[in-house]
Amino acid sequence: MKFKTALIQMAMSADPSANLHKAVQKIREAANMGANVICLPELFRSPYFCQKEDAEFFNLAEPIPGPSTEELGKVAAETKTVVIASLFEKRAPGLYHNTTALIGPDGKLAGMYRKMHIPDDPSYYEKYYFTPGDLGYRAFDTSAGKIGVLVCWDQWYPEAARLTALQGANILFYPTAIGWHPHEKAQYGAAQRDAWRTVQRGHAIANGVFVAAVNRVGHEKPEPSAPGLEFWGASFIADPFGVVVAEASTDEEEILLHEIDTARVEETRRNWPFLRDRRIDTYGGITERFGGK
Amino acid sequence: MKFKTALIQMAMSADPSANLHKAVQKIREAANMGANVICLPELFRSPYFCQKEDAEFFNLAEPIPGPSTEELGKVAAETKTVVIASLFEKRAPGLYHNTTALIGPDGKLAGMYRKMHIPDDPSYYEKYYFTPGDLGYRAFDTSAGKIGVLVCWDQWYPEAARLTALQGANILFYPTAIGWHPHEKAQYGAAQRDAWRTVQRGHAIANGVFVAAVNRVGHEKPEPSAPGLEFWGASFIADPFGVVVAEASTDEEEILLHEIDTARVEETRRNWPFLRDRRIDTYGGITERFGGK
Repeated sequence: MKFKTALIQMAMSADPSANLHKAVQKIREAANMGANVICLPELFRSPYFCQKEDAEFFNLAEPIPGPSTEELGKVAAETKTVVIASLFEKRAPGLYHNTTALIGPDGKLAGMYRKMHIPDDPSYYEKYYFTPGDLGYRAFDTSAGKIGVLVCWDQWYPEAARLTALQGANILFYPTAIGWHPHEKAQYGAAQRDAWRTVQRGHAIANGVFVAAVNRVGHEKPEPSAPGLEFWGASFIADPFGVVVAEASTDEEEILLHEIDTARVEETRRNWPFLRDRRIDTYGGITERFGGK
Repeated sequence: MKFKTALIQMAMSADPSANLHKAVQKIREAANMGANVICLPELFRSPYFCQKEDAEFFNLAEPIPGPSTEELGKVAAETKTVVIASLFEKRAPGLYHNTTALIGPDGKLAGMYRKMHIPDDPSYYEKYYFTPGDLGYRAFDTSAGKIGVLVCWDQWYPEAARLTALQGANILFYPTAIGWHPHEKAQYGAAQRDAWRTVQRGHAIANGVFVAAVNRVGHEKPEPSAPGLEFWGASFIADPFGVVVAEASTDEEEILLHEIDTARVEETRRNWPFLRDRRIDTYGGITERFGGK
């Protein structure tokens, strides 16, 4: 099976309606380019509000299905595409998740993934906002075959990639919001972006799957005097042997289009049969925190 | 803690005694360069005999402790170094392993690791020779801190790296014998070597540990008319953020020396606290073969 995927690398404004409108326009544009599966960046409806802890921002959350999936469902149906949309989910008062909705070409919600690994680091205060996911690692049956969805911080966890691949996914999508602290960029910026890319290419290789990471761009500041975060873009697609087959710039909005041939998954795994030899009898310690202690 | 490690990238002859003699000389040389921990390539006592299945080759196997560990113990004691030596272990008649011995600066056998993941691919017929390991994933207490040892095909398994890191290892050593099929080299060679390097750099990043891979060099043919394997060398050391800090050539014997500062492990993990957020409550599926089936 072959399909075309488009990664929407975009910048966000302070206006959630404007961001949604822009996303809808870019989905139409990607579909016109031939895309069948279109993925938006993490939390595309707003600036990356997790740069500070403020209870007002819970107002940005919405139910799923809800206003965003309804609007995106219309454009998915209009363009007959699969749309992967990262949203701030309000599940109940006081209970919120970082959730990605998968919308089918019929415009209906086809699946949800709640981000399992939640970071909490300076300017990435996600543990304040998001309860860790409880839906497990999923591969969704779509018109483009089995698709896995993980989100940002999940990128650093081989377990998440492995468990999603074991569900049969041919491709892992990672909606992302990762950027540089301006004061670190000169010294550490290149190594940070390279580590981010490398660990995900490693997931592609270890599992024999495509990996597609979709980041935002733009320098966002929670207030004018704050240093903020410079989101580094660089959205990319790696093939099942970890080769980067498409890559975006670090600072421009782009639609990154690439044809995915799922036959490459089988071809790669036949030549590098890692799944054959997993020692599942010896992996029990993975569910322990450290050293059996 | 700081120590210097040396990776002995070498070519093997048909004579096991000559290979052992060469290894001993190179250990002395590395120690003279200041090395405290010295690692040899996989199965350094012989050509890579797994290129064909031949029961005669079981004669190459030896007990551990045995002749090789005795000889290497002498040079370890003489140079006051830790020596990591990959050997063909005869455990009982008809029962053999691909085993790495860790020898302390007192010259004594300090630990053993039996290769857990055994490949079997054209010219890498290891399943014929080696029973998969049964000693688990280990980190060994040494004069240079906790050291993890894995072997070659283990390189492609994030589970092996994770489980060894969770035992407290600051560095993972991978004695290796990997090379190009001559007929594939022009088309696939660069991608193969890059995937091999990338997946291991990914282990360094995901676990916040140093990774040291030690490969052989040379074009070895099981018989003169066979295409054989061109071992690609390129031994390397990656730091806990996946940065390659030392790397050898693809075709020359080399002693690759680098100072390891274990403080880098903590520094890296503090800035990128992946171990903090592992969802151990959700990783049970890792012990299943595929999709819960």
